[in-house]
Amino acid sequence: MTKAAAPVRQALADLPGPDLAARAAVARRATEVLRPSGALARLDELAAWLAGWQRTDRPRVERPAVLVFVGDHGVLAEGVSAYGSEINHEMLRALRDGVATASVMARQLGARLEAVDVGVGRPTGNLRREPALTAARFDECLAIGRSAVAALDADVVVLGEMGIGNTTAAAAVCATLFGGRPSEWTGRGAGIDDAGLRRKRAVVSAARRRVGAADPLDILRQLGGTELVALAGATLEARARALPVILDGYVVGAAVAPLEVARPGTLDHCLAGHLSAEPGHRRLLDRLGMHPLLDLDLRLGEASGGMAALALVRLAAACVTDVATFAEWGLER
Amino acid sequence: MTKAAAPVRQALADLPGPDLAARAAVARRATEVLRPSGALARLDELAAWLAGWQRTDRPRVERPAVLVFVGDHGVLAEGVSAYGSEINHEMLRALRDGVATASVMARQLGARLEAVDVGVGRPTGNLRREPALTAARFDECLAIGRSAVAALDADVVVLGEMGIGNTTAAAAVCATLFGGRPSEWTGRGAGIDDAGLRRKRAVVSAARRRVGAADPLDILRQLGGTELVALAGATLEARARALPVILDGYVVGAAVAPLEVARPGTLDHCLAGHLSAEPGHRRLLDRLGMHPLLDLDLRLGEASGGMAALALVRLAAACVTDVATFAEWGLER
Repeated sequence: MTKAAAPVRQALADLPGPDLAARAAVARRATEVLRPSGALARLDELAAWLAGWQRTDRPRVERPAVLVFVGDHGVLAEGVSAYGSEINHEMLRALRDGVATASVMARQLGARLEAVDVGVGRPTGNLRREPALTAARFDECLAIGRSAVAALDADVVVLGEMGIGNTTAAAAVCATLFGGRPSEWTGRGAGIDDAGLRRKRAVVSAARRRVGAADPLDILRQLGGTELVALAGATLEARARALPVILDGYVVGAAVAPLEVARPGTLDHCLAGHLSAEPGHRRLLDRLGMHPLLDLDLRLGEASGGMAALALVRLAAACVTDVATFAEWGLER
Repeated sequence: MTKAAAPVRQALADLPGPDLAARAAVARRATEVLRPSGALARLDELAAWLAGWQRTDRPRVERPAVLVFVGDHGVLAEGVSAYGSEINHEMLRALRDGVATASVMARQLGARLEAVDVGVGRPTGNLRREPALTAARFDECLAIGRSAVAALDADVVVLGEMGIGNTTAAAAVCATLFGGRPSEWTGRGAGIDDAGLRRKRAVVSAARRRVGAADPLDILRQLGGTELVALAGATLEARARALPVILDGYVVGAAVAPLEVARPGTLDHCLAGHLSAEPGHRRLLDRLGMHPLLDLDLRLGEASGGMAALALVRLAAACVTDVATFAEWGLER
């Protein structure tokens, strides 16, 4: 165990579980409301999942929060993206000014969105050649993620990211954590050309060779980025508070995967909001045993796929909590 | 051409198309807003589709309406459902009292829901042995559907149904319209047992033999039901008004399929909201060339899957209309 991972290990040692009675009560109520039992299938399952983590037999989405963590990546020196880090700065500004895609989606959903600057203007090390983060910086980013969640007044949180170059980091983390050919984990991100994709795969290969077999959390420190580590911290803090989490796409999944590998079950409070267009995402969710709610080929990030899922999670909760049961409606089944 | 189909034929002869300039403008704007071009994939396509039919380059979902048509089915005499027609009466009451699943979803979405009684307490003929509807009743139900849409003040409409026995009608319409084995079109509906499913398949087979090769709209009259014909009328009226439509599941698809067979392109203003758990639905959407937005195994009806899709269509529109372009934000791409 590395020094960097110590606070994570501590948190992993004591994970609160869901309220099983609340979950069971909602699963039962879903069979008693005014519709054929099982007719809402996946939506009823979502309501029960939400009830367990919200610790109530009346699950609701009334105070949704969205956190988008933003950071710069030193690996851009390898030519792995069509864009530069200045975009992170601009998008942070756009998110805060309410004109970015995520801002608009959050407004539509009545969700509170916070864009958290974890490392804009302060890029990571180039993961091909050196650790992305020092142990101290890892702890700092983890704490930023935890604090962001600790400060929320929310009944569900959607986690997202923005960081040019971070699909390279995600691919490197996944390839090192789970094995398999680097090409299986590496996609076009925001839309790089063929030559760029070849460079990206070579970077992922070299990065994996550099790190080799390592502790899952050390893999995250060496190959992730500031916003990925903050996402892991946010997810841990949400678990400590039994706050249900909706994960956005590939980068978010890669950021939290080391937690699940370090201790299976750590992500039980997380829903995979969607399956992204990044080819590694399906493979990753399979490894995590997660079934994405939506499959719309999205590849934006900014929590966008997670927010699309949020719209359905809200409906799912209402469809158990607010629909009358046969008995309440004065009918025998 | 049967007499019954005359008003439909008339409407089919003169179908307004989408505003192609508005559609193109929104497709272009989707490539100019603050995100990588194509990153919202299917959502951007939805926004462009909506723009074409709303005839504006600023598509929005601000006044969504939901119509749920309800009717009784004479084919229940064949033992094809676990429930009886009294459920239609109760659900009509529950829908109007705001305690049904569809009521709750509509409230969550800020949509106006109307439950339209097309034939509750006045069952169709038993489609196995006789035409479900006379020509006069067909015209009456068609007019009910048209009037319901004509009375709306809406920018998008979700169409749904409720009618114990109507998955048998849907299967009979599809099997007769498209061919193939009756078992491929026949599922468990609200949850019938194995023996009931066998009876249901036999009914679909016999009904198809009875009707044989016929005009698509006569197939709908002979094998559909009051709510199915109203759905076809509503869809036609929406097309005449260039009002975009979100279709719910298998029964709604079967109700409108004869329009598309009678004149290909008639359903261009319709989106398949979801793929239902009814096994015939995928086959039907393939025949109609439609790609369902969601795949959640829902099998409720009541416009529920269409409303789940509505939540995403609203986000899709806002993600083009409200997100700033690079130019508006003062940046070069």
